[in-house]
Amino acid sequence: MVRPGTRKFHMGEVSRTSEQEVADAPREADQPHESLIARFGADEPLKLDAGVDLAPLQIAYKTYGTLNAARSNAVLICHALTGDQHVASIHPVTKKPGWWETMIGPGKPIDTERYYVVCPNVVGACMGTTGPSSTDPKTGKPWGLSFPVITIRDMVRAQAMLLDHLGIESLFAVAGGSMGGMQVLQWAASYPHRVFCALPIACATRHSAQNIAFHEVGRQAILADPEWRGGRYLLENTNPRRGLAVARMGAHITYLSDAALHRKFGRKFQDRANPTFSFDADFEVESYLRHQGISFVERFDANSYLYLTRAMDYFDLAADYDGVLANAFKDTPTRFCVVSFTSDWLFPTSESRAIVHALNASSARVSFAEIDTDKGHDAFLLDEPELFAIVRGFLDGAGKARGLSPKS
Amino acid sequence: MVRPGTRKFHMGEVSRTSEQEVADAPREADQPHESLIARFGADEPLKLDAGVDLAPLQIAYKTYGTLNAARSNAVLICHALTGDQHVASIHPVTKKPGWWETMIGPGKPIDTERYYVVCPNVVGACMGTTGPSSTDPKTGKPWGLSFPVITIRDMVRAQAMLLDHLGIESLFAVAGGSMGGMQVLQWAASYPHRVFCALPIACATRHSAQNIAFHEVGRQAILADPEWRGGRYLLENTNPRRGLAVARMGAHITYLSDAALHRKFGRKFQDRANPTFSFDADFEVESYLRHQGISFVERFDANSYLYLTRAMDYFDLAADYDGVLANAFKDTPTRFCVVSFTSDWLFPTSESRAIVHALNASSARVSFAEIDTDKGHDAFLLDEPELFAIVRGFLDGAGKARGLSPKS
Repeated sequence: MVRPGTRKFHMGEVSRTSEQEVADAPREADQPHESLIARFGADEPLKLDAGVDLAPLQIAYKTYGTLNAARSNAVLICHALTGDQHVASIHPVTKKPGWWETMIGPGKPIDTERYYVVCPNVVGACMGTTGPSSTDPKTGKPWGLSFPVITIRDMVRAQAMLLDHLGIESLFAVAGGSMGGMQVLQWAASYPHRVFCALPIACATRHSAQNIAFHEVGRQAILADPEWRGGRYLLENTNPRRGLAVARMGAHITYLSDAALHRKFGRKFQDRANPTFSFDADFEVESYLRHQGISFVERFDANSYLYLTRAMDYFDLAADYDGVLANAFKDTPTRFCVVSFTSDWLFPTSESRAIVHALNASSARVSFAEIDTDKGHDAFLLDEPELFAIVRGFLDGAGKARGLSPKS
Repeated sequence: MVRPGTRKFHMGEVSRTSEQEVADAPREADQPHESLIARFGADEPLKLDAGVDLAPLQIAYKTYGTLNAARSNAVLICHALTGDQHVASIHPVTKKPGWWETMIGPGKPIDTERYYVVCPNVVGACMGTTGPSSTDPKTGKPWGLSFPVITIRDMVRAQAMLLDHLGIESLFAVAGGSMGGMQVLQWAASYPHRVFCALPIACATRHSAQNIAFHEVGRQAILADPEWRGGRYLLENTNPRRGLAVARMGAHITYLSDAALHRKFGRKFQDRANPTFSFDADFEVESYLRHQGISFVERFDANSYLYLTRAMDYFDLAADYDGVLANAFKDTPTRFCVVSFTSDWLFPTSESRAIVHALNASSARVSFAEIDTDKGHDAFLLDEPELFAIVRGFLDGAGKARGLSPKS
C-alpha cells in the first residue's frame, strides 16, 4: 500500500477514455509484455464447469529460477483477484515491483536459487491469459460478456494444462493467498498426486454470504456505469472507469482493517487542520481510497473484475464432495501449511481453522499458523517477517522430504 | 429488513426517471405529508458550524402522545442516516410502519400514553426539513450543492429551536440509534440542563476512519452517476438512482453482520439448486441487496445522502473539548443509558465503552448494556426484547426521579 502523501486525489482524475487508451487495452490482454505465452488450439480445449469448451486458449505466465534435472523443484504461484503473472519482477504497466517480490526471489523465502517458480495469469483475467478483454478469434472482437463464466476449478484446470505443456508432472509446492489460496486448495483436491506441498494463505474453502454481498456491490457499481455498455465498452471506445474505481474503493476497505486504517489515517484531515465543509477529500483516508480507485483502473479490466469476483463467489469446495470438506482431501499425500491473520475479516481465522479441521479429519500432514497483525487481509502481500519465516521453514522441511538439495 | 422471498430483483428495475417522478421529489421535501411543520424566518436563522446562517428554515416533525401540564414528559427521538420523522406511524411514501414502531406507541417501551414523543426530520434530510432537495426561496430552485454542509451539532441546534417553538424547555429524554445516537450525545454535551436522561444506542462519539471510508465509497458511487449532474439533477429532470442504489447496497452490508447474513442467506441460490453461470442474482443475498438498493431510491434523495454522511464523518465530540471526551460531559446532571450490540461492527461495543468511560470520569449517572445478538448494527431497529426491556426499565426509573406519574 502506497500512502499518497500530501497529494490530493480527485475522482475527476478518473478521466473519460481516449481512443488511444482503448486501443492499448486489448493489446496487453492479447499480447502481454514481459511474459511467456502457452497456446492451446481447438484440439486441446479447456473444459469449463459451465459446460462449454474454451478454445483456443492462451496462458500468459512468468518463470523465475531453473527447473532441475529431476523436474522436482517447481513451485506454482497462484495470484489473487487483481494480481497477475508479474509476481517477482517489474510490472510492465505500473512499472512497480512484482506483487510478491518480498516473498519470491534469490534468497527469499520462496528462493528462486533453489526452486523453479511458475506464475500464470488466471483464465478470465486481463494480463494475457484468455479472458473477456481478449480477442475472440471467431469474431475478431473482444469476448466481452460472451466469454463464458469461469470457476476456480477452471483456473486450476488451465494451470494443469500449462504444467503439462511445460513437462512438469509434479509440483513441489503450490502457494497463494486469497483467491490464490482458493486455487491452492482446489489444486490439492483435484490433483493430490501432483502437489507435494500446499500453502493456502488467508483464504477459505467457500465464499461467505457477506463476501458475496461485497462482490455484488462492486459488480453493480460497474454495471451502473453507462460507459460499461453491456460489457461492450472495448468495441464502443468507452471504459467504465468510474464504476470500476468505486468497486475497487469498496473492496479495498475489506482488504485492510479498522485498526490499520485508524493507525495509518485516523481522522486526520488532508493538508489542513480543520474541515473544509465541502465534499472534497477532507480526510486523508478519503484521498487514499480515491488514489486506490484511480490507480487500479489504469491496470485492470472491468469485465475481468466481474468474472473473477463471480468465480470466487461460486467457490465452495465441500459442495463438490457431498458437502463434506474432509472428502476433498481424502487420503491426500500433500503436506499443508495453512496461514491466517488475526485482523483479516474477509477471510477470518475461523475459515482457516475449518480447512485445518477437514485436513485433520483426512489424516493429512498439516501445520497451521495464525499471525498476529493489524494489517488485515492484505497482510499476505505485505512485509510480514513471521509469514516469511513460516513459509521458508515449511518449504525447507518439505524440500528435505522431497529430496531437494539445499541449492538444487 | 424484508426478505424479498422468491422474487428476483434486477438492478434494471432502478429505472431512469420520468418527469412526473421528478416533479414529486421536491414536493415531499417542501410539503411533507402527514407531518407538522415549524417555520423559522430570516430573523431566526440557524447558525451553522460552517459559519453561515441558514434562513428561512423549515422543520418537519411528528408528535405522539400528549404533553403534560408541567411540560415535563417530552421525549425527543433522533433518527438515523436514512430515517425520518415517521417514527411510529405509517410512512407516507413507503406505506410501511414507522421505523421504530416496535419501540414507540401506546404501552410500548417509549409509552405514548405516558410520554409526549417528538420526532423531527433532521436538517439536511429530504422529508420536509430544509435540505438540499428543498426549494431555496431566494432562487425558487432546489438548493442542490449550494446548500451549506451541516454537522450533527447543527441538527441538534435546529432541534433546540423546534423545542423552543413548542415551549418545551426541558426534555425528559432524548433517544436515538446510530446517527440518532450521535445527536443524543451532542444534546447532552450542548444542552445538559435541557436533558433529564439520554439514551445513545449503537453509536460513537466520533466516526472511525473505516466508517469514513465506507461513506466515501457511497458518495463516490453517487458522484460517478452521470445523472447526478453535479448535484443539479432535480433541475435537469434526472435522478442518480443507480449510484444511490449502489451506495445503499454497500452501506447495508455494514448494518448487518457476517453471522446474520450467513443465517439468513448462507450460500443459497435464488430459485434454483445450481448456479446459472451468469451475472444474474444467483445467490439470495444478491437479490436481497439489490432489493435494498431499489427500494431505498424510491424514498431518499441522493444529495441528502451526501450531506448526512458528511455530517457523520465530521462528528468528533471530543475535538470540541480539547480532545478530552470527559469534558463534553463535565458536571452533567443527565442520566445516561448506553447500549451496544455484540455483532455491531459499524459502531462496536468498544465505542460505547469509550462513552461510558468518559461519563464515569465526569461522575455522571450511567448504565451500560451490551446486548448479545447476531443482527449487527441494525439490531437497534429490530425486534430485540432485551433492548425493549432495558429502555422501558431505564425510563421507568428516570420517570420516578423526574416525578412523572405512571400515567402522566
